[in-house]
Amino acid sequence: MTASTGAARSSTTDPVQALLWRDGALHLIDQRVLPLKFDIVRCTTAAEVAAAIRAMVVRGAPAIGCAAAFGIALEASYQVGATRVQFDSALADAFAILAGSRPTAVNLFWALDRMRESVAACGSASTAQAAAHLETAAVALFEGDIATNRAIGRAGAALIPEGARILTHCNAGALATAGHGTALGVIRTARDQGKAISVVAGETRPFLQGARLTAWELMQEKIPVTLATDGMAGHLMRRGQIDLVIVGADRIAANGDVANKIGTYGLAVLARHHRLPFYVAAPLSTVDLATADGDAIPIEERSGDEVTGHAGVRWAPAGVATFNPGFDVTPAALVTALITEKGVLERPDQAGIAGLFQPP
Amino acid sequence: MTASTGAARSSTTDPVQALLWRDGALHLIDQRVLPLKFDIVRCTTAAEVAAAIRAMVVRGAPAIGCAAAFGIALEASYQVGATRVQFDSALADAFAILAGSRPTAVNLFWALDRMRESVAACGSASTAQAAAHLETAAVALFEGDIATNRAIGRAGAALIPEGARILTHCNAGALATAGHGTALGVIRTARDQGKAISVVAGETRPFLQGARLTAWELMQEKIPVTLATDGMAGHLMRRGQIDLVIVGADRIAANGDVANKIGTYGLAVLARHHRLPFYVAAPLSTVDLATADGDAIPIEERSGDEVTGHAGVRWAPAGVATFNPGFDVTPAALVTALITEKGVLERPDQAGIAGLFQPP
Repeated sequence: MTASTGAARSSTTDPVQALLWRDGALHLIDQRVLPLKFDIVRCTTAAEVAAAIRAMVVRGAPAIGCAAAFGIALEASYQVGATRVQFDSALADAFAILAGSRPTAVNLFWALDRMRESVAACGSASTAQAAAHLETAAVALFEGDIATNRAIGRAGAALIPEGARILTHCNAGALATAGHGTALGVIRTARDQGKAISVVAGETRPFLQGARLTAWELMQEKIPVTLATDGMAGHLMRRGQIDLVIVGADRIAANGDVANKIGTYGLAVLARHHRLPFYVAAPLSTVDLATADGDAIPIEERSGDEVTGHAGVRWAPAGVATFNPGFDVTPAALVTALITEKGVLERPDQAGIAGLFQPP
Repeated sequence: MTASTGAARSSTTDPVQALLWRDGALHLIDQRVLPLKFDIVRCTTAAEVAAAIRAMVVRGAPAIGCAAAFGIALEASYQVGATRVQFDSALADAFAILAGSRPTAVNLFWALDRMRESVAACGSASTAQAAAHLETAAVALFEGDIATNRAIGRAGAALIPEGARILTHCNAGALATAGHGTALGVIRTARDQGKAISVVAGETRPFLQGARLTAWELMQEKIPVTLATDGMAGHLMRRGQIDLVIVGADRIAANGDVANKIGTYGLAVLARHHRLPFYVAAPLSTVDLATADGDAIPIEERSGDEVTGHAGVRWAPAGVATFNPGFDVTPAALVTALITEKGVLERPDQAGIAGLFQPP
């Protein structure tokens, strides 16, 4: 690690901060062990960041994008003093290993593209200058994500009625982003506006992001939260105990189809059956115009060990076959509105999505 | 325990037997620890049987009905030699404690009603004669359940196409009954008819009956089974990987509404959305003509400890609020057909349900 990266420090005003850039290293809350343990994983190389993304030390589409950007900054810092050929070669390797860490969330590739643009902008600068430039770019990307999420929160809070009982899935909160969160950012902003809302957190098997992360994050902020297993959503809706559903997204196709954590699609179908709003909150960096529709989104298949137990505790019989798709696809037709930093897009479709990218 | 109960022995031809009546005691496979451990809990009093039902050592609507019947037989056996007043008083206590063990599955109350009829039929017989009569009645109820399930299997197997990929929820198998199973009985019979079927077992949080019991039971019988978390059902249906859904029931109201393990209702909505058949397999003892519709079925609320972790392992934050309804209600309109020992009732409704109880 070189001194050039020692000064900058990322910061948010949230009580929960998944990523912290300090002293030339990326510090990650280990989200595999929350809330039982609060451990910090310190990454000083791109390979360590990629491994942390793959293992889900850090997860959440915007957060892994930010982590990947810092991974590039770390590699650049490590290569200060190398020849420019060595520097470029090492960075190319870093881009490759980070891009290979997880396949579904497009924010990862979006962030790496932004960092590639920053590398290109360095021209023939010295390796020290380039490294400093890439660190600045990564911090800017991180801080931009927080600003984006606050804009999403403001736009989305207008959709949240006083007293709303809100079902969310997985964790689209501060822990999934640079700060504030997307779906939970809307909830935070609504609460900050004085609305007496409450949240039902679906536990989100197999990785239990809802039970472990969303419940913990909301309790940190004293937002009322009740934990439910994934199979309880229909029952609660039928009993009139849910007013709306809001989730994040890992990739949104050009036609508005949404890939998000496995289980999301079932909630969208249930919401439609019960005539409840189903909202998706995500930054524009989650929209992938190069992917025509949801069927073209690659769905990560993860280890069966996540399904046969949890965190080293196994309960299913040895040798049982498993499914473990990390994500599912919700057709745009089931999405009541998409909430981005550009505002609320009702009934998202190809034209509406394209419109988000037009200059104002 | 008296010698009079030592001779009778319940038996099935299934490799999996949840209840075994032998040597004057009720032996239960401990379904809390399957498949990691194969422990037998031996009950010799009605109170022990009630505790085993409450703790879910034995579970599944028909199985808890059979267990309760044996609980009455145990109490009668223990009271042999008492005065008839003491005998009747002790039996009344046994009926009360068993009836209070779990509220939703009606088979429990049905079985206790059958045993009350047997008590009444004893008239002024000696306590030894009454105890012997009640043991015979409990064994008959147990063996009747197996015969019923085989009839359900034959009726339902006609609905299972060659090559069908079948989603089931919770465990409605041999472990949930005296033997053969209801939903899994249909699957067993279809396989025994030579159909190349395969099963997706939903894990069924929070108690994980699908992951622990259904996966294990089907593997014992070499029926192909793949384990999925509850949130994966919609994704698998959307991908065309499920051909039909079949589940058991804990109580069926007079209008055909079905109470079954929490998560069932969501699967019924998803099946309807994907135009897939949704079948319910249950004996007539599960039908409660005294309950007009599903809203009148009491839904057991269980401890939050089941939701915040599993089997002593906790993963949710301390102090988090939880929902834990053990069951949900699927409206009859979402049920493609009800499969009973009387055959297949398509589109169950009040008239169709009533017809099941008419003499042929």
